[in-house]
Amino acid sequence: MAHIDLGLDEKQFPGIIGLMRYRPETAKPLNQLAEVLLRTPNSLPPGDRELIAAYVSGLNECEFCCASHSAFAAVQLEPGMALVDQVRADVDSAPVSAKLRALLHIAGAVQKSGRNVTTEMVEAARAEGATDVEIHDTVLIAAAFCMFNRYVDGLGSLPAQDPQDYFRAAERIVESGYTD
Amino acid sequence: MAHIDLGLDEKQFPGIIGLMRYRPETAKPLNQLAEVLLRTPNSLPPGDRELIAAYVSGLNECEFCCASHSAFAAVQLEPGMALVDQVRADVDSAPVSAKLRALLHIAGAVQKSGRNVTTEMVEAARAEGATDVEIHDTVLIAAAFCMFNRYVDGLGSLPAQDPQDYFRAAERIVESGYTD
Repeated sequence: MAHIDLGLDEKQFPGIIGLMRYRPETAKPLNQLAEVLLRTPNSLPPGDRELIAAYVSGLNECEFCCASHSAFAAVQLEPGMALVDQVRADVDSAPVSAKLRALLHIAGAVQKSGRNVTTEMVEAARAEGATDVEIHDTVLIAAAFCMFNRYVDGLGSLPAQDPQDYFRAAERIVESGYTD
Repeated sequence: MAHIDLGLDEKQFPGIIGLMRYRPETAKPLNQLAEVLLRTPNSLPPGDRELIAAYVSGLNECEFCCASHSAFAAVQLEPGMALVDQVRADVDSAPVSAKLRALLHIAGAVQKSGRNVTTEMVEAARAEGATDVEIHDTVLIAAAFCMFNRYVDGLGSLPAQDPQDYFRAAERIVESGYTD
């Protein structure tokens, strides 16, 4: 049960879905932010950006967000959930590019505190080919999921009843995005 | 110096101001979120909402955000900065309403983790007259500043050169809001 009365069936609208239906005024900019950060075409593929979101949500132990964005990453990356699980278990040994590994290190620092990001971490990402926009977006994706995770858990939202729901949501996100 | 090249004079555009000029695509939903959470009329006065933002930014030790939102709160509350300083020093002894104190306790929990918010904290706020929307918005303001703080510090943005700049910004925010 959520900490507040959302006026809907929480099992039908788990996690952030129920919160967004409860407060459409805040849902609108939150969805637009997710769309720009995770879907709008740029040099970092959507699957990589969803992987950063899943990784940070796992560090914040937010079950709904981590399961959601793990599924969203898995359907857009090869070899799917096996790769997501490897990244979440150990970034350093996971089979990702050196650039993505360096960006995940920055995201992991941001999860603790913005002040934990060092010049060395940024230089390491740049040495592997990361652009300034990619570094900017990595920091903001990690920061945004420190918000989304606290929003979902701070209001006591339920996770999905059926784990397959996360994959059904993934199909919708890949097809229509966050703002549809 | 920021960790990335913002292509502008960072002393003239400190903190999140430079970041928003660098990446207007993400600035737009971020400013819209701030406007809804901190300015759009609802039962919690803008000064109280800015105070929650300042309090969380202080806990996250983000100099630019804490100084900004402390000024934004101070110009909208009596007796101004003295009250902001008292809240930041000790919520329990600060001269705020019992309702606002209970909401600040929830915000302080969210700053650590969404999972730190307890049913007892929510019941305490409700017992002092807090509505479900006020509890929702308090959690989301606190969560949002865990994002803004990490965004500003994670990219190594500079604080303002002149502390009076925060009060000049406060005048603009009170007059025109975040999206102008």
